[in-house]
Amino acid sequence: MSPRLITLLTDFGSRDGYVGAMKGVIARFAPEARVVDICHEIHPQDIRRAGIVWAEAVRFFPEASVHVAVVDPGVGTRRRILGFEARGSVFLAADNGLIGYVLGRREIRRSVEVKCRELFLTPVSSTFHGRDIFAPIAARLSMGLDLDALGPHARSFRFETLPRPRISRRRLRGKERVLARGEVVHVDAFGNAITNLRRLEGSKLEALETGGGRIRGLSRAYADVEPGEVLALVASSGFLEIAVNGGSAVESLRLRRGDPVVAWFSRS
Amino acid sequence: MSPRLITLLTDFGSRDGYVGAMKGVIARFAPEARVVDICHEIHPQDIRRAGIVWAEAVRFFPEASVHVAVVDPGVGTRRRILGFEARGSVFLAADNGLIGYVLGRREIRRSVEVKCRELFLTPVSSTFHGRDIFAPIAARLSMGLDLDALGPHARSFRFETLPRPRISRRRLRGKERVLARGEVVHVDAFGNAITNLRRLEGSKLEALETGGGRIRGLSRAYADVEPGEVLALVASSGFLEIAVNGGSAVESLRLRRGDPVVAWFSRS
Amino acid sequence: MSPRLITLLTDFGSRDGYVGAMKGVIARFAPEARVVDICHEIHPQDIRRAGIVWAEAVRFFPEASVHVAVVDPGVGTRRRILGFEARGSVFLAADNGLIGYVLGRREIRRSVEVKCRELFLTPVSSTFHGRDIFAPIAARLSMGLDLDALGPHARSFRFETLPRPRISRRRLRGKERVLARGEVVHVDAFGNAITNLRRLEGSKLEALETGGGRIRGLSRAYADVEPGEVLALVASSGFLEIAVNGGSAVESLRLRRGDPVVAWFSRS
Repeated sequence: MSPRLITLLTDFGSRDGYVGAMKGVIARFAPEARVVDICHEIHPQDIRRAGIVWAEAVRFFPEASVHVAVVDPGVGTRRRILGFEARGSVFLAADNGLIGYVLGRREIRRSVEVKCRELFLTPVSSTFHGRDIFAPIAARLSMGLDLDALGPHARSFRFETLPRPRISRRRLRGKERVLARGEVVHVDAFGNAITNLRRLEGSKLEALETGGGRIRGLSRAYADVEPGEVLALVASSGFLEIAVNGGSAVESLRLRRGDPVVAWFSRS
Repeated sequence: MSPRLITLLTDFGSRDGYVGAMKGVIARFAPEARVVDICHEIHPQDIRRAGIVWAEAVRFFPEASVHVAVVDPGVGTRRRILGFEARGSVFLAADNGLIGYVLGRREIRRSVEVKCRELFLTPVSSTFHGRDIFAPIAARLSMGLDLDALGPHARSFRFETLPRPRISRRRLRGKERVLARGEVVHVDAFGNAITNLRRLEGSKLEALETGGGRIRGLSRAYADVEPGEVLALVASSGFLEIAVNGGSAVESLRLRRGDPVVAWFSRS
Repeated sequence: MSPRLITLLTDFGSRDGYVGAMKGVIARFAPEARVVDICHEIHPQDIRRAGIVWAEAVRFFPEASVHVAVVDPGVGTRRRILGFEARGSVFLAADNGLIGYVLGRREIRRSVEVKCRELFLTPVSSTFHGRDIFAPIAARLSMGLDLDALGPHARSFRFETLPRPRISRRRLRGKERVLARGEVVHVDAFGNAITNLRRLEGSKLEALETGGGRIRGLSRAYADVEPGEVLALVASSGFLEIAVNGGSAVESLRLRRGDPVVAWFSRS
């Protein structure tokens, strides 16, 4: 049987040899395993961005993958490293809440604490557990090691999620409107601002309001508006997104992560 | 038989999970296919740069590769996605002219429009066809699917090319000179300025003229001149290139893409 | 037998098609070889940084790997390209001193000059030996070609190393101290400043002194100090490192590569 595919997400950047060192360790213990980079350009220790990027990518991988995230401000302290089974795959991450962006609580079939010191590199450094713990464990999981071999059941763990939008109702010129108040949670490399708001079922998006301006209606594609114009659409992640056709929404509207966004819906 | 190698070129950058999502989809439908990244750092929607980078790389891959480019300002509109057969390989790209930088018209053996909705992810988003259309199609091509299965013959398509240099003759102090007027078409990460000019057969390059200065003669290697000095040479792509030994030509000469360059040749 | 794993380190950046072209050539001559990127973001022609990054990564790869470094300011000149056998693996690099950062002199079992022109791409460009020489050679080595087939024994070669710290003794308030004077040799993407100083066996680190301030004691992990505080610890490479918990040491202390660092040790 082929080894399971391994994906890597880190905040190591691409200017050092750290990701290479992890891949070296993986190649030592799982020479035939394929390793796919999700992203290494997470701003150091930015758990939320890491979570959004990780979620965006891993849901498209086949079952029986091994997904590894090393965004780990607590490296070298007593914080735990956890393994999760969900969606037929395995997820490895430090216990810092990251997993909550990727998996629903009910999807998690098993959760264990990584305690199998005999599988770690020796000596274990206190600054680079990606290489000394995550990589050799990932390689063994890729070769078929069962999650239970990593350590004892982890009953509880940190679990961050996107902020929940606040929903309210208002009458406007005799018509009922539903307001969803959320925020910009992610800015991608195109300058698109992705929110924590989704479409309401059975409703029509009338407008998105930001500090930088008001966008009427929902477009289907970037090119539905003139070049340089602002639009709202449903991002590939399913969330409402603010974009500029052929440009950058965060520059045009001076948006930043955390900025409030209000969506106005009408019953359709 | 091993699956065909897949190469990827996009303008997605390396800070998001978009490339990872594409690789996840490919892994789902072609688990053993090898995927090679050509470049993901194309400036969003910069068709020409994408074309030059794509051309630079793909001509070195073996036959029977599947080359995928997702630089696609028209995503979600009615613009077509096309598949081309050339050089024993397959090329997938939106119908935006990009293919013209990579293939000669006469090299193209087949051209089809991608219409096989049954092979797309469902639902197809309107913003991320790289994941929903290009990736599953690339995976199936890698597994041996014939190009004709993608859709009907595409009779015509957009076809951009580099601007053609203008050639003229002039007598200078009793000697005949051939002038080729072109421009800087690409600036690489070293700061080398690559032009759309080639050497004329049977001629000798006397000088290259730019707004930033005049370079005499043609060097063979960067280190043929002193450190910090400007030189002209034949880039690895075959085009004339302006460089600085150990430095950046675009900084030293304040060159930008689009700046005019004149090459003076004498009959040798 | 599976082809040997190939690793790549270059200063080509990720914005062009140069790395892709190298991978294309490798795929042509070793279609099944796995290629792992160590780093392509070396500042052009920065031999020392390349050496530190290369050393950091390659020591974790399994035996029988083929490690290729293309950081080569002398490309196209008469500088030699060398192949080394060490640690059961093969290393390919230009003769510019880089190998000294990665291997000890006594580890090198064989050293040859690459002269086998029949294995190069033809014509060989004068600006891109990564593609025309390193890549086809690496592919053949991956397929099992013996190092001796590359060319004659290279008796001597350039061999750079990190500067050696200067050690001295001093009495301070009646107690003997050992001083090690070194410097910042590397700044990583987190803003950690890595020095050329190691712990002295049988001694205790009392303090690290830089132009930006004095750090008392040695921490085990970043999170051993408060967020924003400076600390000293042993980097994953074994060298002493100056870091800020959750921040950037080079910004906080205004450190740059080459800045002097003094370590004070006491007999423990």
